Amino acid sequence: MSQEKISKIAVFPGSFDPITIGHEAIIRRALPLFDKIIVAIGKNTVKKNLFALEDRMEWIKIALKEFEDKVEVAAFDGLTMNFCKERDAQFILRGLRTSVDFEFEYSISQINRQIGDIETIFLFTDPVYTPISSSIVRDIYLHGGDFSSLIPKGIKLIKNEE
Amino acid sequence: MSQEKISKIAVFPGSFDPITIGHEAIIRRALPLFDKIIVAIGKNTVKKNLFALEDRMEWIKIALKEFEDKVEVAAFDGLTMNFCKERDAQFILRGLRTSVDFEFEYSISQINRQIGDIETIFLFTDPVYTPISSSIVRDIYLHGGDFSSLIPKGIKLIKNEE
Amino acid sequence: MSQEKISKIAVFPGSFDPITIGHEAIIRRALPLFDKIIVAIGKNTVKKNLFALEDRMEWIKIALKEFEDKVEVAAFDGLTMNFCKERDAQFILRGLRTSVDFEFEYSISQINRQIGDIETIFLFTDPVYTPISSSIVRDIYLHGGDFSSLIPKGIKLIKNEE
Amino acid sequence: MSQEKISKIAVFPGSFDPITIGHEAIIRRALPLFDKIIVAIGKNTVKKNLFALEDRMEWIKIALKEFEDKVEVAAFDGLTMNFCKERDAQFILRGLRTSVDFEFEYSISQINRQIGDIETIFLFTDPVYTPISSSIVRDIYLHGGDFSSLIPKGIKLIKNEE
Amino acid sequence: MSQEKISKIAVFPGSFDPITIGHEAIIRRALPLFDKIIVAIGKNTVKKNLFALEDRMEWIKIALKEFEDKVEVAAFDGLTMNFCKERDAQFILRGLRTSVDFEFEYSISQINRQIGDIETIFLFTDPVYTPISSSIVRDIYLHGGDFSSLIPKGIKLIKNEE
Amino acid sequence: MSQEKISKIAVFPGSFDPITIGHEAIIRRALPLFDKIIVAIGKNTVKKNLFALEDRMEWIKIALKEFEDKVEVAAFDGLTMNFCKERDAQFILRGLRTSVDFEFEYSISQINRQIGDIETIFLFTDPVYTPISSSIVRDIYLHGGDFSSLIPKGIKLIKNEE
Repeated sequence: MSQEKISKIAVFPGSFDPITIGHEAIIRRALPLFDKIIVAIGKNTVKKNLFALEDRMEWIKIALKEFEDKVEVAAFDGLTMNFCKERDAQFILRGLRTSVDFEFEYSISQINRQIGDIETIFLFTDPVYTPISSSIVRDIYLHGGDFSSLIPKGIKLIKNEE
Repeated sequence: MSQEKISKIAVFPGSFDPITIGHEAIIRRALPLFDKIIVAIGKNTVKKNLFALEDRMEWIKIALKEFEDKVEVAAFDGLTMNFCKERDAQFILRGLRTSVDFEFEYSISQINRQIGDIETIFLFTDPVYTPISSSIVRDIYLHGGDFSSLIPKGIKLIKNEE
Repeated sequence: MSQEKISKIAVFPGSFDPITIGHEAIIRRALPLFDKIIVAIGKNTVKKNLFALEDRMEWIKIALKEFEDKVEVAAFDGLTMNFCKERDAQFILRGLRTSVDFEFEYSISQINRQIGDIETIFLFTDPVYTPISSSIVRDIYLHGGDFSSLIPKGIKLIKNEE
Repeated sequence: MSQEKISKIAVFPGSFDPITIGHEAIIRRALPLFDKIIVAIGKNTVKKNLFALEDRMEWIKIALKEFEDKVEVAAFDGLTMNFCKERDAQFILRGLRTSVDFEFEYSISQINRQIGDIETIFLFTDPVYTPISSSIVRDIYLHGGDFSSLIPKGIKLIKNEE
Repeated sequence: MSQEKISKIAVFPGSFDPITIGHEAIIRRALPLFDKIIVAIGKNTVKKNLFALEDRMEWIKIALKEFEDKVEVAAFDGLTMNFCKERDAQFILRGLRTSVDFEFEYSISQINRQIGDIETIFLFTDPVYTPISSSIVRDIYLHGGDFSSLIPKGIKLIKNEE
Repeated sequence: MSQEKISKIAVFPGSFDPITIGHEAIIRRALPLFDKIIVAIGKNTVKKNLFALEDRMEWIKIALKEFEDKVEVAAFDGLTMNFCKERDAQFILRGLRTSVDFEFEYSISQINRQIGDIETIFLFTDPVYTPISSSIVRDIYLHGGDFSSLIPKGIKLIKNEE
C-alpha cells in the first residue's frame, strides 16, 4: 500500500518571540509522530515583534540542533494553510495550554480543515510549562528580571533594534 | 390586556466587519421571537474597521433582503443601552459561540440590565458556524484566501480605502 | 401577515427540586418575551428527587401566583422536545449560570433544534443568583441549615417520604 | 535510521455505548497519522452500560468495515496505559469536544504520560458533531425518539437484556 | 489594637480519599498565612469512600507530622460552615486546579460567605500537581497500577473492608 | 516562635483606571488576613491609562480612608515580584471574577511563585461585582452614561488631559 510511503510532514506555526521551553517540549514530544516538523514563523505585518526574525529563527535552530535532520526552521507570509500546501504538509501541530487556548485554537483549526483541508494535531502542554509563554518571557526580559529558566539552553536574547 | 400590544423590538449590535453567515443565521432564527430586529453597527472610534460603514450596512441589507419589513439596519454612536432607549427596544439579541464569549457577554449583559434596564436574549450559535467570525474572514481576505463560504451570498467585499 | 397571531409559548424544563429564587427570577424576566411559559417538571425515572412531584409543582405555583394567567405548571414523561410539540411550544427557555452550564446546555439545545426543531432561548442568571442551585438548597436542608433566603417566599419545604 | 520502521499504533479508548458519528469521524480523520488504530472498549465494572459489549464491538466494526486492515476493535480490563503497553501502542487518540472535556482529558493524559510514558494525541471534534455524545443517543433511544442521524449507518441498536 | 491578637484559623475541608501530594502542597504553602489549619474530613453519608475514615485521618497526620503544632486533623458531620463556627475558624482554605473547579468552588464559597459569613481563601495548585486527584489515585490503586509518586511519602494505602 | 511576629504584607496590584466597587470589596474582605495591604499601581509604559496616576492613587485613598493604618497606596515600575521584594511583601492579593480570569491569573501567579517566591492569595469576587470592571466604567464614562453605582462613594472622575 502506498499510504505508508507518504512522508508525514507537520507545520508548527507561531511567532516564537522568543521560543520557550514550552515550545521546545511540544516539538520534542511530537517528533515520533512525524517524518518532518517545519517550525514556521509567520511574518505578521500587524503585530510588532520584540526580537528580529533572524534571531528568532536562529534560537529555534539552537534549541533543536540535535534533531536537525527532522526539524526545519522557516518563515512565511500569508495564511498558514497556504504555507502548508506549498510545503506538502498535511498537518499543523499545536500545543494546548489552557481552556482559553482551546476556544481560539478550535476556530482556527476548523477553518484550516474546512477551507484548507489541513488537519491540526494537538498535544497538551506539560503542566510544568503551562504558565510559560513568549509574552511572559518578553515581560520579564523588558523589566530586567531573570527569565533564563523559561527559554531553551544556549540562547542569548538580543533585542531587535530596527 | 395591553402587554400583547407592545411591539417586541430587539437590537442586534456589532461591528459586522463584515457580516458573516454566523450573524445571518442568528438573525433568521430570532425573527419568530420579535416584531422587529434592528441590526445596529456601533461607530467605535477606537477600533479601526477594515470595511467602510456604508458597505457594512449595505451587506447586511443584502443578506436579509427577504425580511426587510422586520429587519432594519442602523448605525449608532455611544452606548448600546442608550441606542436601545432611543429606539424603544426592550431587548438586545446576541449569539453565543464559545464559553470565552460567555464571560464577556455575561458582564456586558448584566450592566445593560442593571443600569439600562435592557434584557439581553441569547441564542447559541449553530455548531457549523462556531469557528466563523468577522476577524477570521478579514484575515483570509487580507491574505488573498477564499472566504466565500463564510459570508452571506450576494456580497462582494471591498476594502475601505479612506 | 399571520406570524404575529401565533402564540409564543415557551417550556421552562427542570427538576425544580425545589424551585429556587434563581429559577423564579428567570421566569419573571422572560415573561415580556412570551405569551405563555409552561414550567415543566421532567419525571426522571433514574435520578431520585428529594421532594415529591406534587409539592414541587405546588411550590412553583405559589412562587408565580401573580402571573397565573401566563405561567402554567406541568409534569411530563420522556423527551422535552416531544413535550414541546404536544403543547405547541416553539421555544425552550433556559437560564445560564456559568460557563460549565454553557457546555452542557450547548449540546442539549443543539440536539433539540436539529432533531426537534425547537429553538432554545437563554437568559443569563443575575449574578446575585449565580451561586444558588437546587442541589445547594437540598444540601443545606438535609444538614439543618438556613436556606430560607434561597427559595421563593411563602414556600415551606417538606421532604418526600415515599 | 530505525525510527521510521516502528509501527505507529494508537489506542482509541472509550465505552462506545454506542458508537456515534462523532467517534467515527475522529477515527477516519486520524487514520493518515497512524499505521494502526485499536478501538478499545474499557470493561468498566462500576458504570453499567446500556448495550452489550459484543454489540458495541460489532457496531464499531460495521462503522469502520472499509478500514478493517488498519482498524482493530478490542476490549480490555484495567488501566488504559497497561493495555497500550500490552499492545505496543505508543499513542492514545482522543477527540476533544468542549473546554469542559479539556480539563478532564488534560489530567488523564498527563497521568498517562507521566506514569505510563504514553503520549495522547488530540483532534478537535468537527463542530457538526460537538453536541453528539453516546449519552444523548441513549437518552433519545430510551425515550423512543429518532436518533438515526447520530449513529453510523448500518447499525441497529438492541438494548442489553442481561 | 486587638485585631492582631485574634488567631487566624482555617479549615481545609475534603474527603482525602486518600490525601495526595497536591493536597499536601496546598497545606504547606498556606501555613505562613494562618495560625492554625484544621484539615477536616466531612463524613459524607451519600458518597461511599474507598478508604476508612481512621486511615484517611492517619495518612494526613503522617504527611504533615513536622507541622503538628499548627496542623490539626478532624472529622465532622453536616455543613462545613457550621463546623467552622464550632471551631472559631474564620476561613476556609481551598486549592484551585482548573477552571471547571472554579465554577463549582465559586458557588460553594459564595454560599458560605453569604449564609455562614466564612471567607474562603484560594491558592492555585502548582501545575505539577494539577492532574493529580484522589479519584485518579483510587483508579490506579484499584487496577493495580503504580500510584506511589502521587501520595505523600510514608503512606501505605489499605482498602476499607467494612 | 518567631513566625507569628513576621508582618503579613500583601500587594494588591493593578491599573485601577479607575478603582471600582469590586476592587474596594476585595480589599475590605482581605483585611482580616493581612497586617498590611499595599494597593500598588503598576506604571505600565505600553498601555495608555485614561486617568492620571495621581488621581487614581487619590481615589483609592478616598475609598479606603477608614483603613489608612493598614492600607497603603503606592506606584511602581517594573515587575510586581520585584516591588514585593522591595517592600518585604510575601503575598500578592488578587480577586477572581471569571474562569477567563482564572487562566490568566494562573500563569502569572505561577511565574511569581516559581521565579519570585511570592505566593498569590485569591478571593472570589462577590457575584454582585462580577460584571464590574474598570474598562466597563471607562466605557460608560466616555459615552456619558451613569457609572456612579460602579465606583466607590466620594470619588469624582476627572479625565487625564496630559
